[in-house]
Amino acid sequence: MTSTALRIDTLLEARWIIPVDPPHTTLIDHAIAIQDGKIIAILPTVEALSQFSPEQHFVLNHHLIIPGLINTHTHAAMTLMRGMADDLPLMDWLKNCIWPVEKQWVDTDFVLAGTTLACAEMLKGGITCFNDMYFFPEKAVEAAAQTGMRAAIGLISIEFPTAYATDANDYLAKGLMLREQYLEYPTLSFCLAPHAPYTVSDSTLSNIFTFANQLDLPIHMHLHETSEEIASSLHDFGIRPIERLQKLNLLGPNLIGVHMVHLTNEEINLLKLHNCNVVHCPSSNMKLASGIAPIVDLVNASINVAIGTDGAASNNRLDMFEEMRLTSLLGKVTHGAQALSAHQVLRMATLNGAITLGIEALTGSLSVGKAADITAIDFSGLELSPCFNPLSHLIYVASREHVSHVWVNGQLLLNEGELVTLNEAEIIERTQYWQNRITSKQ
Amino acid sequence: MTSTALRIDTLLEARWIIPVDPPHTTLIDHAIAIQDGKIIAILPTVEALSQFSPEQHFVLNHHLIIPGLINTHTHAAMTLMRGMADDLPLMDWLKNCIWPVEKQWVDTDFVLAGTTLACAEMLKGGITCFNDMYFFPEKAVEAAAQTGMRAAIGLISIEFPTAYATDANDYLAKGLMLREQYLEYPTLSFCLAPHAPYTVSDSTLSNIFTFANQLDLPIHMHLHETSEEIASSLHDFGIRPIERLQKLNLLGPNLIGVHMVHLTNEEINLLKLHNCNVVHCPSSNMKLASGIAPIVDLVNASINVAIGTDGAASNNRLDMFEEMRLTSLLGKVTHGAQALSAHQVLRMATLNGAITLGIEALTGSLSVGKAADITAIDFSGLELSPCFNPLSHLIYVASREHVSHVWVNGQLLLNEGELVTLNEAEIIERTQYWQNRITSKQ
Repeated sequence: MTSTALRIDTLLEARWIIPVDPPHTTLIDHAIAIQDGKIIAILPTVEALSQFSPEQHFVLNHHLIIPGLINTHTHAAMTLMRGMADDLPLMDWLKNCIWPVEKQWVDTDFVLAGTTLACAEMLKGGITCFNDMYFFPEKAVEAAAQTGMRAAIGLISIEFPTAYATDANDYLAKGLMLREQYLEYPTLSFCLAPHAPYTVSDSTLSNIFTFANQLDLPIHMHLHETSEEIASSLHDFGIRPIERLQKLNLLGPNLIGVHMVHLTNEEINLLKLHNCNVVHCPSSNMKLASGIAPIVDLVNASINVAIGTDGAASNNRLDMFEEMRLTSLLGKVTHGAQALSAHQVLRMATLNGAITLGIEALTGSLSVGKAADITAIDFSGLELSPCFNPLSHLIYVASREHVSHVWVNGQLLLNEGELVTLNEAEIIERTQYWQNRITSKQ
Repeated sequence: MTSTALRIDTLLEARWIIPVDPPHTTLIDHAIAIQDGKIIAILPTVEALSQFSPEQHFVLNHHLIIPGLINTHTHAAMTLMRGMADDLPLMDWLKNCIWPVEKQWVDTDFVLAGTTLACAEMLKGGITCFNDMYFFPEKAVEAAAQTGMRAAIGLISIEFPTAYATDANDYLAKGLMLREQYLEYPTLSFCLAPHAPYTVSDSTLSNIFTFANQLDLPIHMHLHETSEEIASSLHDFGIRPIERLQKLNLLGPNLIGVHMVHLTNEEINLLKLHNCNVVHCPSSNMKLASGIAPIVDLVNASINVAIGTDGAASNNRLDMFEEMRLTSLLGKVTHGAQALSAHQVLRMATLNGAITLGIEALTGSLSVGKAADITAIDFSGLELSPCFNPLSHLIYVASREHVSHVWVNGQLLLNEGELVTLNEAEIIERTQYWQNRITSKQ
């Protein structure tokens, strides 16, 4: 450090840095300089040490640093229902298990407790941002704000009444009011979130189209998840869900179609034509026997594909390492061993998620000027040895327990595997309280 | 404890015990009593505390205890090649990457170092027994014996010469001599291990049939892994590999067919008729794009199916939790959400493995009289909360980092996540030495 060194908040030295953008780049012995929550420089460590005088200095000599993982589809509060109903297909699981429990138990306390549990699990697993869809989104806002995580909050719409809202207009009004309230909050963004084609009417979807255009909001929706969903749309509307959305003008770059398991070639062309985004949730689709989404075809059509965990009631882990590995393995077994390389999959789990949420100017890659949303993975363990290629190791060998540090917007939220803004013991205790309540009444 | 309490070596108290046999049983607040390496009682903890006076006493109040996991197919020494060649199909990967590196580097030191690394990884992941196939099996014996792990050692046969042996007869002679030497070793058993249909001749297979019958040894062989393997058999022999093995009398309860991805209904019937065993390696089959084995059909035909990780050069983790989860998810996505339940999959990863190796009288379930091969998983973590069902949590939520304790033959080999008989730092250092050697010459 020279006398002319610039004072900065934080400097991270790492053995390897994979910034995702530019693609196919692995920087060795480089450092990231952070000031006011933003990345201000990425440069060789030896240069960084002479240029900067950091307040906080992390030496991560056995670590890989990547952009924070973006979980582009989840229902965070449902983590309280983790493993409550396994080995069932989607509609049975939803109608006979999940919806009755939700009806009985979901209130503001449930959503705050469940989302906080989810945030803790996600941060420990290297996730810096999640795209949520659930009732009482004001409590997801509260949980995310308390932990410091970045979140895209879904403003949920569904036709049936719940403790949260009485009808589709009430859902929308409450959601939009919440957005107004937190419009300037630095780590929050918002999506309109009509639940699914089979639970939202044409008129509600038309209203959502209007607001999406007016306010430039993404539209986050389950879409073409099961063959049953498509059959019911053909029965009720005479057309498949995507065609119905097309007629309602909802196909466009704002659309986030989650699951997209069952797609014709014409539908893939339509999605490309309208620059729609797809979120792949491989564990959930396999576990609920929904099917295998044609991700390689979507990627070949240059459609933006991101990755999500779905909720812990269907997955049952909020684990992006698992989803990344599974995305690659499913791509390979369906399309050959070269399909969905480690680089492609990491991009899907980071930058493509940010593009999906419309926040790619802010996050999704390690780039000067973007927020410091960063995950460090400790590669020193025996089960990561030897390491010939840190990128392929990240996807095929590492798992979430190797995550050592997480920063969001420059704030340290996980330090040597320990949560900084959350108390693990308290969260476990509160989860136990909910488990006891739910179990006692079943 | 009363004055009449029986002195025993070890008592394990646990929140939950799933013995696998009897099926569909979860014991709550029970204990396992161990004497001379064997399970002598499983009973309610409150009774155990009055009946036994243990030398070692483990109180595992937040833990699930299961039979030690059996990795029924691996090439342990290849862990030194972990991640060396990703994103390639089997034959390209084998001929252009793996075989050249093996030719240059594989010697006794390589096999000892690689197998020791594999044993350390497997023990930390709750695996108590592995079925190995590799060159210099005397070094796999040495590594397993040093760590205390149970192992089925493959007596490899392949037609081409290596540093280990010159021709098929030499391979067989060396293997059988090794077996003679360790015949009475309590934690070792042996399998004849002809590599694959495309690398072993009819006459060698005939010899193997003779020895298998004479010595009652299992025959551990890659079989019907890829469509290319079947095409090459049709080209070279005019018949598919299973038909060829049938003609050579190799179909029988001693046969361990590994992979079995491509099977006709007639072949499934033939496997059942002869009581052959199948080992499923889902990660490896997906990653090398070999295909998805018809496990649900095999299970429905009452064929004994076990699970293996394959080697770390193709997987790239020796992680039975990952393989169990993937086995279930693949079963569901191909055959519906009820397929391959948590209970079925745990049985495949334990008792079915023991049956495959012919050691089910000794291990594979928590039963009085069997060896104390035991794995404990700590369920207290945040990412395992809440827990409504420990069995489904084991398969869908837990992963290997939650393994806290492992016993083999009553000997504690992993204690609170720390290896007892192995030095982690030394193993990592030795692995680094091999990585440097291999990299410098590439």
